[in-house]
Amino acid sequence: MFDTNLTTDRPSYVTHLQCSATGERLPADTLQSLSPAGKPLLVRYDLERMAREWARADAEGRPADLWRWRELLPVRRVKDIVSLGESETPLIPLPSAGGPGVLVKDEGRLPTGSFKARGLVMAVSMAKALGVKQIAMPTNGNAGAALAAYASRCGIETVILCPEDTPDVNVREIALQGGRVWRVNGLIDECGAIVAEGARQGRWFDFSTLKEPYRIEGKKTMGLELALQLGWRLPDAIFYPTGGGTGLIGMWKAFDELEALGWIGSERPRMYAVQAAGCAPIVKAFDEGADHAERWPDAHTVASGIRVPKALGDFLILKAVRESGGRAIAVEDDATLAAVAEAARQDGLLLCPEGGATLAAYRKALAEGWLGSDEQVVLFNCATGLKYPMPAVERTLDRHAAIDFDAL
Amino acid sequence: MFDTNLTTDRPSYVTHLQCSATGERLPADTLQSLSPAGKPLLVRYDLERMAREWARADAEGRPADLWRWRELLPVRRVKDIVSLGESETPLIPLPSAGGPGVLVKDEGRLPTGSFKARGLVMAVSMAKALGVKQIAMPTNGNAGAALAAYASRCGIETVILCPEDTPDVNVREIALQGGRVWRVNGLIDECGAIVAEGARQGRWFDFSTLKEPYRIEGKKTMGLELALQLGWRLPDAIFYPTGGGTGLIGMWKAFDELEALGWIGSERPRMYAVQAAGCAPIVKAFDEGADHAERWPDAHTVASGIRVPKALGDFLILKAVRESGGRAIAVEDDATLAAVAEAARQDGLLLCPEGGATLAAYRKALAEGWLGSDEQVVLFNCATGLKYPMPAVERTLDRHAAIDFDAL
Repeated sequence: MFDTNLTTDRPSYVTHLQCSATGERLPADTLQSLSPAGKPLLVRYDLERMAREWARADAEGRPADLWRWRELLPVRRVKDIVSLGESETPLIPLPSAGGPGVLVKDEGRLPTGSFKARGLVMAVSMAKALGVKQIAMPTNGNAGAALAAYASRCGIETVILCPEDTPDVNVREIALQGGRVWRVNGLIDECGAIVAEGARQGRWFDFSTLKEPYRIEGKKTMGLELALQLGWRLPDAIFYPTGGGTGLIGMWKAFDELEALGWIGSERPRMYAVQAAGCAPIVKAFDEGADHAERWPDAHTVASGIRVPKALGDFLILKAVRESGGRAIAVEDDATLAAVAEAARQDGLLLCPEGGATLAAYRKALAEGWLGSDEQVVLFNCATGLKYPMPAVERTLDRHAAIDFDAL
Repeated sequence: MFDTNLTTDRPSYVTHLQCSATGERLPADTLQSLSPAGKPLLVRYDLERMAREWARADAEGRPADLWRWRELLPVRRVKDIVSLGESETPLIPLPSAGGPGVLVKDEGRLPTGSFKARGLVMAVSMAKALGVKQIAMPTNGNAGAALAAYASRCGIETVILCPEDTPDVNVREIALQGGRVWRVNGLIDECGAIVAEGARQGRWFDFSTLKEPYRIEGKKTMGLELALQLGWRLPDAIFYPTGGGTGLIGMWKAFDELEALGWIGSERPRMYAVQAAGCAPIVKAFDEGADHAERWPDAHTVASGIRVPKALGDFLILKAVRESGGRAIAVEDDATLAAVAEAARQDGLLLCPEGGATLAAYRKALAEGWLGSDEQVVLFNCATGLKYPMPAVERTLDRHAAIDFDAL
């Protein structure tokens, strides 16, 4: 025995699935994709009963991983859990490149090096529970790597399609972890069209963002963890790199569930959806007051994880951002790369480009006066910076020659 | 407030430093390198008093990071702690590529992606406490990356020397995190000779493996964590990738300290020191019954982290391995790479080559009958596999052409 979270049966309080647009109810514990209205499904729980039977101290007393939230998660049976060790991720101060109130939630510490593990461990465990044997997914890299790892671990086959310029490390990682990965001459939504066609033909289950209801449940643990780590007080603001937006939607859902349990009050952080200037459909929709976002043409950015021209959950992202009193913010790639370099050099913390974008957006928000420097903010670093290109170094020393120590 | 381990002052029980060879005592809280006999120094604690004042439940009740062990660590003041979030690393079953009794301790989850963070967070925090301003170190990559990150975080300057064929990702990471890094046409001990000369000239403090007493204290937390995670019962065997051997020596020390506290009994795991066939000085010394190891000529292996031709702590490694009833085991690079590929494909766990070597050594030990398949073993995966070369993938799909779905 070495992990009580994964060896102890706990009750699940799932009652049903619900369409995020129409409110229509669908049964849980059956294989579901989008709702009849073509919108994402949300998992609902019996929170009243949970509030009577479960207390904050119960969650606090368990090992510090994602499975401490079992009652608020959809997996019913321990034997369906496909785990690679989803440890709680640390909050790391960023005093120099950020400021005294800035904490980075370092999601690069998760299995396969990104926050995608949270969503995929849940979705794959549920797919296993429901008897799925074949899964396909479009990905910008990290989601595919997480899917391949968890699916291979439980014998599910995967076909993974990514844009042709996806970083090599992602493609290789996916293949090494048993995924059948293909580079496609298109962006993530164009890869998704091929996945959708294969699903229509009955070849596989479609694991595109928000096309199955469980990734969001995994991602919401970011919000649950944050609340616990901060002593059940949420920060003033959250900066979240937003592509498909599952995490932002998930955290917003998590906060509502925690309030329903009576574990937090009605205060909410302002949610800042961070996008790249070269792919900012949510920012455009936010600025225009629109409920849905148009597809962004010619999307490009160094932060490939947020190069998502069209998000299925656009209306949910926009709703959460507006309800929170936050904003959608676009940052230039130059500012993103400068932020990565400064966090590494000044604070020793290597962010991924998407994480760098959140720091750049925080700086922009400060400069614009949207936020005070005394406020507590959390920046989400969604993946390890080690997966991304870093500037080359050309400094060599000949040990057979006289060493010029002054030059070192 | 978000981390009680880093905001609460706790007593330190350090009494003195002691030469690992002669037993000579030196004062703590002063800057020390090797002992007068030229051997590593060990930190000693008042374990009798600690046993009266500290209980297992105290450690268990704290946040799951390295700092929960504060009483057994040398840093006295909270303000000297230079942290990047040293979370407890998970134990992950390896049922297919390993077996039912095999757990991997995934040290790639630590800051900078390797177990080097454990040693360096402690050594840098102590260097800061003792007023050091300049540090130099020879490295095969990961130690240098950890040093650069922690030192930059607290304003200490670093000069880092690595063999010329050190993986690009390591060299770039070091530079991005503010280290002045140089590639040298020599192996790690030859880089170390340059660092030693600079230290002799008073240019910097020498942070070579075991040349200061605190890295070992950080590394010993691997043993402390393991004991707690397994419910205060140690595994039957530990397979540890052994270069400089700090971790193996550290865990052995940790087990003795835990026994002195009365937290575990006298049982010990058999310690298996794993080396590459192309660089196996400890294996050769073990097989020959020698107390010290000779420098290994023409060292080469894909597992660059254990390409250490000569270890300063050789006699301590050999002593621990022998006392434990374990062995030193050499594995071929082919077996190491096959183990990496199988763990990734079958269990979804991407090991680094050094971690792969421990799996290959475990298989060898099973085949040789040194170990039963029903025994509980822990393999140390010392770094994230994402830092290392992976096989290339050449599969492309033209979305404008008709998709042959049967071929995906």
